[in-house]
Amino acid sequence: MSDISVVMGSKSDWPTVKETCAILDQFGVTYEKKVISAHRMPNEMFAFAQNAVDNGIKVIIACAGGAAHLPGMVAANTPLPVIGIPGQTKALGGMDSLLSIVQMPAGIPVATTAIGKAGAKNAALLALQILGITDKRIQQKIIEYRRVMHDQAKESGKDLE
Amino acid sequence: MSDISVVMGSKSDWPTVKETCAILDQFGVTYEKKVISAHRMPNEMFAFAQNAVDNGIKVIIACAGGAAHLPGMVAANTPLPVIGIPGQTKALGGMDSLLSIVQMPAGIPVATTAIGKAGAKNAALLALQILGITDKRIQQKIIEYRRVMHDQAKESGKDLE
Amino acid sequence: MSDISVVMGSKSDWPTVKETCAILDQFGVTYEKKVISAHRMPNEMFAFAQNAVDNGIKVIIACAGGAAHLPGMVAANTPLPVIGIPGQTKALGGMDSLLSIVQMPAGIPVATTAIGKAGAKNAALLALQILGITDKRIQQKIIEYRRVMHDQAKESGKDLE
Amino acid sequence: MSDISVVMGSKSDWPTVKETCAILDQFGVTYEKKVISAHRMPNEMFAFAQNAVDNGIKVIIACAGGAAHLPGMVAANTPLPVIGIPGQTKALGGMDSLLSIVQMPAGIPVATTAIGKAGAKNAALLALQILGITDKRIQQKIIEYRRVMHDQAKESGKDLE
Amino acid sequence: MSDISVVMGSKSDWPTVKETCAILDQFGVTYEKKVISAHRMPNEMFAFAQNAVDNGIKVIIACAGGAAHLPGMVAANTPLPVIGIPGQTKALGGMDSLLSIVQMPAGIPVATTAIGKAGAKNAALLALQILGITDKRIQQKIIEYRRVMHDQAKESGKDLE
Amino acid sequence: MSDISVVMGSKSDWPTVKETCAILDQFGVTYEKKVISAHRMPNEMFAFAQNAVDNGIKVIIACAGGAAHLPGMVAANTPLPVIGIPGQTKALGGMDSLLSIVQMPAGIPVATTAIGKAGAKNAALLALQILGITDKRIQQKIIEYRRVMHDQAKESGKDLE
Amino acid sequence: MSDISVVMGSKSDWPTVKETCAILDQFGVTYEKKVISAHRMPNEMFAFAQNAVDNGIKVIIACAGGAAHLPGMVAANTPLPVIGIPGQTKALGGMDSLLSIVQMPAGIPVATTAIGKAGAKNAALLALQILGITDKRIQQKIIEYRRVMHDQAKESGKDLE
Amino acid sequence: MSDISVVMGSKSDWPTVKETCAILDQFGVTYEKKVISAHRMPNEMFAFAQNAVDNGIKVIIACAGGAAHLPGMVAANTPLPVIGIPGQTKALGGMDSLLSIVQMPAGIPVATTAIGKAGAKNAALLALQILGITDKRIQQKIIEYRRVMHDQAKESGKDLE
Repeated sequence: MSDISVVMGSKSDWPTVKETCAILDQFGVTYEKKVISAHRMPNEMFAFAQNAVDNGIKVIIACAGGAAHLPGMVAANTPLPVIGIPGQTKALGGMDSLLSIVQMPAGIPVATTAIGKAGAKNAALLALQILGITDKRIQQKIIEYRRVMHDQAKESGKDLE
Repeated sequence: MSDISVVMGSKSDWPTVKETCAILDQFGVTYEKKVISAHRMPNEMFAFAQNAVDNGIKVIIACAGGAAHLPGMVAANTPLPVIGIPGQTKALGGMDSLLSIVQMPAGIPVATTAIGKAGAKNAALLALQILGITDKRIQQKIIEYRRVMHDQAKESGKDLE
Repeated sequence: MSDISVVMGSKSDWPTVKETCAILDQFGVTYEKKVISAHRMPNEMFAFAQNAVDNGIKVIIACAGGAAHLPGMVAANTPLPVIGIPGQTKALGGMDSLLSIVQMPAGIPVATTAIGKAGAKNAALLALQILGITDKRIQQKIIEYRRVMHDQAKESGKDLE
Repeated sequence: MSDISVVMGSKSDWPTVKETCAILDQFGVTYEKKVISAHRMPNEMFAFAQNAVDNGIKVIIACAGGAAHLPGMVAANTPLPVIGIPGQTKALGGMDSLLSIVQMPAGIPVATTAIGKAGAKNAALLALQILGITDKRIQQKIIEYRRVMHDQAKESGKDLE
Repeated sequence: MSDISVVMGSKSDWPTVKETCAILDQFGVTYEKKVISAHRMPNEMFAFAQNAVDNGIKVIIACAGGAAHLPGMVAANTPLPVIGIPGQTKALGGMDSLLSIVQMPAGIPVATTAIGKAGAKNAALLALQILGITDKRIQQKIIEYRRVMHDQAKESGKDLE
Repeated sequence: MSDISVVMGSKSDWPTVKETCAILDQFGVTYEKKVISAHRMPNEMFAFAQNAVDNGIKVIIACAGGAAHLPGMVAANTPLPVIGIPGQTKALGGMDSLLSIVQMPAGIPVATTAIGKAGAKNAALLALQILGITDKRIQQKIIEYRRVMHDQAKESGKDLE
Repeated sequence: MSDISVVMGSKSDWPTVKETCAILDQFGVTYEKKVISAHRMPNEMFAFAQNAVDNGIKVIIACAGGAAHLPGMVAANTPLPVIGIPGQTKALGGMDSLLSIVQMPAGIPVATTAIGKAGAKNAALLALQILGITDKRIQQKIIEYRRVMHDQAKESGKDLE
Repeated sequence: MSDISVVMGSKSDWPTVKETCAILDQFGVTYEKKVISAHRMPNEMFAFAQNAVDNGIKVIIACAGGAAHLPGMVAANTPLPVIGIPGQTKALGGMDSLLSIVQMPAGIPVATTAIGKAGAKNAALLALQILGITDKRIQQKIIEYRRVMHDQAKESGKDLE
């Protein structure tokens, strides 16, 4: 059983989503990752979402691009928090993905992160922060992770040339 | 049994969608109209879409606003043509609805019309044009409808003051 | 005689439009393809559209970019359903093409698909879904096409690394 | 015979276009004004544009909103200069009209002015400036018109309170 | 001590944010609400964020408009999950608020909801879903809340006239 | 003395503007071309514009990018028609150039063409169409130019593969 | 002689610009205010800008809307810092004004503030902060002004109901 | 002690910001440059901003991209003028950075320049123009800098081929 489920609408989202997984690996939490297309695998998507609680999942991360329905439709089928990553797109840069994910009507939220790889990393961190509310070990790792980021940012300014 | 099914994501879409129904009434085709929320009634939505062929529906018209998933998710669950009407929205004018509906990934098309009431009327006309391919009586009515529009447009220019 | 007519505003649209034709080929329907520029060949465009019914065409697919008038002007000259593909553009990504095609005034609909190649593929599928309403063999092929897509999507998730 | 022809896609454009006509009246040039809908009156539109030179028209002004095809399609059918006024629209403010008019492909220009009433006034002034190249009386009136604008602008700053 | 802290950048955000509070009231969770301006009360903002864990807060909800820095800056100062509500704005509809909140760089996520009141409601629901991961009573109430929404949506379609 | 003056805000606009000049060359009209930066050479810009009538110029074409003030400021200083070409830009694609040129306030029009090279070509053709009102030889060449475009477009469709 | 000059492109900008003046009044600095239209009063604009240093002006604030050239053209004619306020506009909300002001090419900066009244207030405060670099009395007043804002923001949160 | 402080949110901004520093070098003013991340180094950011006056800084230049909070948050913590450079971004071109920086609420201005390298250069020039108000030697150099730009622009037009 996994704490976090990471799903993407297409294998073409994987270069983005592997940034999510890299952080989850680094934190040592259990997670599963799958391609579940809202449009090509609708029944699997519903089954996945409707069984997520029973499968012990705590947080779902979903990435999709264009008319990105996966995060919102998963959210509509589970009481678990769903984090949506808008994929960057060729024609419109990802504005289409962003609006399709973030502009959810009242009733069914999707916790939306930034377009593309920054958002993919942040989806992992957000899931970890959520788990960290009750799992102080994870929260402590977040604090440590930020300390490292802080030090690297500070260090990075030393050789601007 | 109805030829056309008109669905909307929320009753708040009705002022838009009744423009669709007014034209269908005028053409005398059979149609049904329903509120089916993709996010609040996902199971009904899937049942509706997956049974549409068996229920004798030929064309589906779906209106939704914001992160508008209804048209695309219905389309993913039926081989019937689905026409999507992007609802006008307060914050972004309907750009969110438009991109959520039109930017479907390869595989599952949604025939998208204009934002708001113009799109609602055109969804009806598009459905009728589709039925008119094989039902020459409907096609004839489209031709007649356009003749009237033509005459009214022409007439309207006579008293510009 | 062809069931579907595929027109494009410029030969530079062909790399997009050939995605449409590849799917039509795969489904084995009859179609014709032509360059008809709304702005450089207006008389041919009108003749084409006004004769389409008599020529036995059932659905028209039109692709254009920028101030993309071809789909809408063809639609204004035929009672047949017209599907519009917005071409991707260098300066604005295709937002110009999209708005020029989708924002049709009440009276003359254009069934708009996504910007660029995804839209080109979906235009073919939408035309086939429309023909499939009455031609159950085509509808069956759509269902089969989706089953393959479904299986490929599912399969694709097996080796995410 | 008129020097300038002012056409609009719908009578609903008249509140915008009458700003154009008011300036033409003020300058005392001959002009005609008509509703010619690209989508509802395509044949009249082509006849109008194709006969414009023979009818002694020198400049055409065309206003339309949404997927605004009138200016570009008129331009495609006449060697005369065509000025396009993008109508303001409810959903997208007129960005749709602007892009549909200004983003013409190489070969057929439309001289585009600002969205809405400012653009309607400027369409008249632009037409007059064009006629003024060879008609020095009109050019002189433009200079005088600007002098008045100048004085009014200057005067207007005297009582800022 | 409160489970949830609801902060807003200005009292002018209260008409939006009270939608958040109404749902939290309905669910009977403990929460606090405050005006904390990122730009006018920066020290209080940092103190608030840096003390949130010690104060027993589990989830933070922050609403701001325009160059909306509150959610991101709070997030930068706490390991708790932060939910951001983009306020609707007069000039740009809230696109400025949305991009200022959602486009966070890798490292510090903000869980962004929709622009305006829908987002305000969803921020509450998202916070509740997060708490519901471990508090099954809250998760049960979410499920019940959705059942009511479902029934109301279904019922609402009965009198479309 | 030249009929047309082609100015650009920076030498970096030349790859765009040379498309304008190539067409003017092809038509054999007299023209001059210059770099006149609105921001770096303001006095020369004003002198250029204020002397244009006396210098026998009939139409001015001005290209600029970003906060593109050259076309509008030239227009403010001459009663001649000014055609504006919005340069394509790296960050925003040219939307900044377009809005800076086309959204002129009532009183001072700029005849705006498309962003980038298509607009550069069309600026030349528009200038020629303007001269062609009274110079029937030029108008005849426009008609011939279009005939060639027409034939090439038609021909181009013959080998779509 | 005034320290600050506040100019606007049209009297219609005054409702925005009076917010600027109200703050300058409150701080008791000397300032002048004028309507100077870039497009209708170009010579006065250049004279104003080119004489500003000699007239003892230290900072210029300029407000304009649409294709807003005033701030950039004033900046091109003076070595003084110029602050630009983008006016809110009906069609595009002020995005046109913003891009016309902020996207200045390298060489001539305009210090751009927010669209509309918030930007008008901030233009005054920015000018005061600039003067406050060397006039510590003004800097002290800025600090005091912020203290009051801080207290009011803090106080405002006490009665959220 | 430095007159100007140049800060950036990430070392990845350095290719942009070094354009700022190159101009400051050329003018021979004293400046410091640092990476200070609003999100990863919030305490350092506040300390930096709150001590800037005491450290003798006169003008601060801050560059950041995406949800760019650095310029506004620095501005909230110092009475010194802060100049913001919006970084160009991959997904949205820098529109996100621009709106996050320029749309500051009333009370705390950020003097925003253009997106990317042009803005980086202009941030330096703006800072110099600000210092030049009281340091006439710097103002004189600005005038000289512009004279060189003017001559180069003029010269550049001589070999357009």
